[in-house]
Amino acid sequence: MKRVVATGTFDILHPGHLYYLEQSKKLGDELTVIVARDANVKHKPTPIIPEEQRRCMVAAIRCVDHAILGDLTDMFRPIDEIRPAIITIGFNQHFSEENLRKALAVRGLAPEIIRIGKYGENGLCSSRTIIQRIVEQRSGK
Amino acid sequence: MKRVVATGTFDILHPGHLYYLEQSKKLGDELTVIVARDANVKHKPTPIIPEEQRRCMVAAIRCVDHAILGDLTDMFRPIDEIRPAIITIGFNQHFSEENLRKALAVRGLAPEIIRIGKYGENGLCSSRTIIQRIVEQRSGK
Repeated sequence: MKRVVATGTFDILHPGHLYYLEQSKKLGDELTVIVARDANVKHKPTPIIPEEQRRCMVAAIRCVDHAILGDLTDMFRPIDEIRPAIITIGFNQHFSEENLRKALAVRGLAPEIIRIGKYGENGLCSSRTIIQRIVEQRSGK
Repeated sequence: MKRVVATGTFDILHPGHLYYLEQSKKLGDELTVIVARDANVKHKPTPIIPEEQRRCMVAAIRCVDHAILGDLTDMFRPIDEIRPAIITIGFNQHFSEENLRKALAVRGLAPEIIRIGKYGENGLCSSRTIIQRIVEQRSGK
């Protein structure tokens, strides 16, 4: 059983998320997605959708076996419990593979770190872009 | 093989959509979802997400077997092709079961029409509510 872990905020789901999750699943047998806690999203605006709803929507995607909320204080605790063979990173996730590898090694964890490429150019493939479009089209209505 | 058809716009997916689709699937063996064409959404603002992207997101939900776009001119054509045993209607869909039944009978179709109840009160369970929240929180940023 080869476990894969993917992570993210998944505020407004779009095909870029699907691509990231489907590619992640293909790398192993079981995909667990760790969904960022509202309180831990600090490098961008607070998500529109509350954490439990974001988790529930990710859990409904066909290729996802488990979707859990991240730990509030220790981002590596779920990794320690799941012991994945692979952790995938999205093309635009802001941490470096090298730093992540080092931080995991401190915990005695050595999963393979794989960055998933960008999903084409089709569609509204960014929560931020979808939010901008909503603000442009619906403000003042 | 008991086929079920569900329909809708599915602009910004939320747990209310999941509930409608999961309840629909439970009524039969195979669930086909007919996703409204952009040009046919007339009783509310044009969807934010283009039709093919809306279809693709619905198709990724675990309980959905097939997701297709509606016919541009004849809303009953896909029903005629699928020949479902059951058509489900969402709690807030604006057409009446009785009128739908009559219109289908004209085509020689007599599926059972079942309205699915509302999904609790939890979460942001309306595309419109999510859009309002985005406009409130992000306008001017």
